[in-house]
Amino acid sequence: MKTCAIVGASGYTGRELLALLARHPRLRATVVMTARPGAAPEPPQFPGEPTIDALDLARLRDVDGVFLCTPHGAASAIAQAALAADKRVVDLSADFRLRDPANYQRTYGSAHPAPELLGRAVYGLVEHQRERVQQAQLVANPGCYPTSVLLPLLPLLQGRLLDANAPIVADCKSGTSGAGKAVSERTHFGNVHENFLAYGVGTHRHAPEIWQEAGTQRIVFTPHLLPVFRGILSTLYVTPAAGVAADAIRSALRERYAREPFVRVYEAGTPQPELRCVQHTNQCHIAVAASGPLVVITSAIDNLVKGASGQALQNMNLMLSLPEGDGLP
Amino acid sequence: MKTCAIVGASGYTGRELLALLARHPRLRATVVMTARPGAAPEPPQFPGEPTIDALDLARLRDVDGVFLCTPHGAASAIAQAALAADKRVVDLSADFRLRDPANYQRTYGSAHPAPELLGRAVYGLVEHQRERVQQAQLVANPGCYPTSVLLPLLPLLQGRLLDANAPIVADCKSGTSGAGKAVSERTHFGNVHENFLAYGVGTHRHAPEIWQEAGTQRIVFTPHLLPVFRGILSTLYVTPAAGVAADAIRSALRERYAREPFVRVYEAGTPQPELRCVQHTNQCHIAVAASGPLVVITSAIDNLVKGASGQALQNMNLMLSLPEGDGLP
Amino acid sequence: MKTCAIVGASGYTGRELLALLARHPRLRATVVMTARPGAAPEPPQFPGEPTIDALDLARLRDVDGVFLCTPHGAASAIAQAALAADKRVVDLSADFRLRDPANYQRTYGSAHPAPELLGRAVYGLVEHQRERVQQAQLVANPGCYPTSVLLPLLPLLQGRLLDANAPIVADCKSGTSGAGKAVSERTHFGNVHENFLAYGVGTHRHAPEIWQEAGTQRIVFTPHLLPVFRGILSTLYVTPAAGVAADAIRSALRERYAREPFVRVYEAGTPQPELRCVQHTNQCHIAVAASGPLVVITSAIDNLVKGASGQALQNMNLMLSLPEGDGLP
Amino acid sequence: MKTCAIVGASGYTGRELLALLARHPRLRATVVMTARPGAAPEPPQFPGEPTIDALDLARLRDVDGVFLCTPHGAASAIAQAALAADKRVVDLSADFRLRDPANYQRTYGSAHPAPELLGRAVYGLVEHQRERVQQAQLVANPGCYPTSVLLPLLPLLQGRLLDANAPIVADCKSGTSGAGKAVSERTHFGNVHENFLAYGVGTHRHAPEIWQEAGTQRIVFTPHLLPVFRGILSTLYVTPAAGVAADAIRSALRERYAREPFVRVYEAGTPQPELRCVQHTNQCHIAVAASGPLVVITSAIDNLVKGASGQALQNMNLMLSLPEGDGLP
Repeated sequence: MKTCAIVGASGYTGRELLALLARHPRLRATVVMTARPGAAPEPPQFPGEPTIDALDLARLRDVDGVFLCTPHGAASAIAQAALAADKRVVDLSADFRLRDPANYQRTYGSAHPAPELLGRAVYGLVEHQRERVQQAQLVANPGCYPTSVLLPLLPLLQGRLLDANAPIVADCKSGTSGAGKAVSERTHFGNVHENFLAYGVGTHRHAPEIWQEAGTQRIVFTPHLLPVFRGILSTLYVTPAAGVAADAIRSALRERYAREPFVRVYEAGTPQPELRCVQHTNQCHIAVAASGPLVVITSAIDNLVKGASGQALQNMNLMLSLPEGDGLP
Repeated sequence: MKTCAIVGASGYTGRELLALLARHPRLRATVVMTARPGAAPEPPQFPGEPTIDALDLARLRDVDGVFLCTPHGAASAIAQAALAADKRVVDLSADFRLRDPANYQRTYGSAHPAPELLGRAVYGLVEHQRERVQQAQLVANPGCYPTSVLLPLLPLLQGRLLDANAPIVADCKSGTSGAGKAVSERTHFGNVHENFLAYGVGTHRHAPEIWQEAGTQRIVFTPHLLPVFRGILSTLYVTPAAGVAADAIRSALRERYAREPFVRVYEAGTPQPELRCVQHTNQCHIAVAASGPLVVITSAIDNLVKGASGQALQNMNLMLSLPEGDGLP
Repeated sequence: MKTCAIVGASGYTGRELLALLARHPRLRATVVMTARPGAAPEPPQFPGEPTIDALDLARLRDVDGVFLCTPHGAASAIAQAALAADKRVVDLSADFRLRDPANYQRTYGSAHPAPELLGRAVYGLVEHQRERVQQAQLVANPGCYPTSVLLPLLPLLQGRLLDANAPIVADCKSGTSGAGKAVSERTHFGNVHENFLAYGVGTHRHAPEIWQEAGTQRIVFTPHLLPVFRGILSTLYVTPAAGVAADAIRSALRERYAREPFVRVYEAGTPQPELRCVQHTNQCHIAVAASGPLVVITSAIDNLVKGASGQALQNMNLMLSLPEGDGLP
Repeated sequence: MKTCAIVGASGYTGRELLALLARHPRLRATVVMTARPGAAPEPPQFPGEPTIDALDLARLRDVDGVFLCTPHGAASAIAQAALAADKRVVDLSADFRLRDPANYQRTYGSAHPAPELLGRAVYGLVEHQRERVQQAQLVANPGCYPTSVLLPLLPLLQGRLLDANAPIVADCKSGTSGAGKAVSERTHFGNVHENFLAYGVGTHRHAPEIWQEAGTQRIVFTPHLLPVFRGILSTLYVTPAAGVAADAIRSALRERYAREPFVRVYEAGTPQPELRCVQHTNQCHIAVAASGPLVVITSAIDNLVKGASGQALQNMNLMLSLPEGDGLP
């Protein structure tokens, strides 16, 4: 039995990790702490829930792996401490996703707090970085939107199946848990229920992350806020390269992911993926359809599982040499 | 005081019309009937609601205008009777939207029931057909998705502000009331709540209607089902013509609609339109933003009002020489 | 045309009043202000909405009536100013609902800010206080829960139709708009959606208000939070007096409210009232059914209309000698 | 590894059982069939889901236990076949819950299809029937509402802590999954979302089941339909026996359930149980509070787990001598 710490356990991703680890046969959360220095321990919110201890970096020495479920900016200092103690670290914040500190500063509005660590971080989109993750000491867990966009897109870009000059539209819709647990106007029930809107048009922080991993800025990313709690559905519009049909794109994706347990590419003629197909699972479901001059690709994930805590656990399993699917529904 | 009939009053659009007419100062619903020949009258669903009479075409003689809130296919016969009695008719079904009967047959899967009337029908997108509507005896009320797509798009196409060869993406999201009141797997609470999906990808019946009115098939239309009751938000991705910036597109739309009471184009820097801005109103709210190589246009309507019964009333007001905005919130 | 001021116009009840007044034929909101002294004016939240001016008590001199849509505690000072200027005042807060200042202090945790006004305030449950409201200068608009409980209960208590010793259960369920527009843990989407709970069991502030008006503390009131925005459904369990059947209770209510435009008591055999029957209306719908030894009475209102702004307008109409139903859907 | 059959696997309770069994360490669903004689096999609804075979009673011979997830009326014939083959049977329908066939006929409107089996059936409210369940060959799995009402109530009735003459109010609110997967007006999204209502007042079929197990008809049961998918919250109003306080009632429940892994009685001062505390778990959470002359007890379960499939699995585990909590979250 290996052990891990969850730092920042009171937020949505921390709680989701706790729930996943409760069923993990080989990894146990033995240290469960807040992320805010000086913050008091938090008693259980409801009877039966765990207490969240005060932050104590010394306790990271007692575990094999460390999950950082902190806001961006706060993760770096804790990562430094954990790495100094030679622990494996999966950071669920955005701190280590952008390789270029200038890009980080442009995107997040402040200087990177630990640029010397950027070179050591592996971008943990497991299906595309498995070997590097196995060797990594620090993994940047991908953002939720980027996960839903990159899984269908990367094989097509790598296989040169798309028109190299045409823009790619990524029209993405997320449940509110992506906005986190903190109260805000944006997540007030009266502003979400029976409502829908686009936000961050042309300016969202996940665009540079998508561009970095895709190797192109031709991707036009628009997020929207759904009146649901869990799930992202991304609708991608791609222009095939000359002579490439929707069927070839589907086949390429099916072949690429045929042996991946957490990615499922639908056959032609199957219904569209729905959020309910993937909620509470670590799956990404993908469908491909022709529509006039374009090909429409839809991709569904649970933003809290494959888009956050599930993928983080997948990464940690690899880093600790455990079976990759352990603890993942 | 003028009078009108509502045929097919038990569905969502019929009930919405009844609610709007209850506050109309110059038009009263004096005939309220089912659309199904031979169907029994329907008692009020709840105390205080109106009784819906059995269908009796002879009663259409007693009114000035007739609203047809029937399924497609069923409207034509009733329209013929009403036109024979020299009444003004607004058809909320799809029967008279496509001008070409072959297009109707391809799209709706059966021969058009009254092709001789097609030439008399005016497509009632008021802001673009006001004068023809005023003269019309038969108006085809636009579909909900087409209304939300065409209002922002037509001025750009007419003004040659878009790249004439690039595809246009219309990623549209609708509440469930667009699927009507009949029970179905698709609208079961358990299949909608906390869920989201695309449907009809590349095959939806509103695409030929959009193509006809836009004059181009370059528009790639994808509908999605939102877990809300009312509202459509359409996110359009357009490629500007050379030298045209997002600001010019916004300015063109603001100028085009400056004197239209039911279309509002947001200034730069304003928040994105939300469904709640337009629910229970006859408004279409539109915003324009640059995003990389494309311009993103969002457009919000209430599918039951501007996308159906409100626009139908706007048309009828014009046809009966009443103030266009009477009865419209 | 008469004029009124709305103080505290940015909250849910203020906005609802603005929407109602937009259709009022004889009363116009000419002064629209925040309630917080020193607060800056608020620009429109969305294009087309009104600006909310800074608080300026001098402007109350220019109107006929004043609506106070402020938190409890804040209304008293503004009410004093308005009454000093001889204006009619409807206070939607709780400041003037409890006649006994000691009761106010027990319930709201601080001394009453203007006890000298308590004697002038009329409790504005219109159907039971119409004549006093017509004469009143200051009306305390009833709470949302008390409105839904007292309308069905008062005629039964007054008619001695209930066992005078048995407890009365008021199990009440409200949408989240009752909790107001301010952000809070309680109204975070993630804490409301797909959730339900009781709160304030045995301790809610509306219980003393119900007890005062009903003249008895035998009423056991339990509020619950529904994952809806608008509406209250109250389920009351009463023990009939000896020899009184459910039918007699229903008949008594039907007779009592037969000429009231905003209260509808269902006949036997009718479906149960639903929130959707009363949302966006000023109606209270009531049904009565036998269930073993008790009689179950359900009562539905829109908490923002009959439970707040609609009833406030009904009161103001009476105070200004306007038709009682003006502006009320 | 033991094996079981699920008959009627396409409904909500069948699918929930499949999901639970997927994580069960010692019991596997090897036979998964529809319940309707002659119905065709059902292909997976979405990629990755199981195929549901046609009904074939002979296959019941190959398993250790049989779950019947059928509508009431249909279960009896299959139960007979399974019992004839000497299998352990848990029936999730209502067929074996009422011991008296006359009561069944009054409640369900037709003669009981297999009255000779009624004497063999054990009512599977595990916490109150554990030893009888262990010996049983046929278990009637309790209804969802009765489970939520009886768990808090039975210890109080047995301990004579309640006034023996006073009525007991059970005001219960359920998510829509309790109404099943079949399409209906009642579960149409447009009739549930942003809505709430009571139904079956004084007439619901679960009342006789509650009365039978509680041994009294003084319980007034009113169900309501919540706009959520999963969960029941029941609010009970009881009159304590002379000299008994709320604290004594709470203590009695806490003591009674102290060693039960699936029932949790909150301490005084704890927040109220919410649906989200128990969704996707087999837990029943209970709180007790004084409110004037009555004591208010709230009880929350997931209607699909503790109120159906989870409790069914708990029963089957006992019948097959497996650890009671196996496969239960």
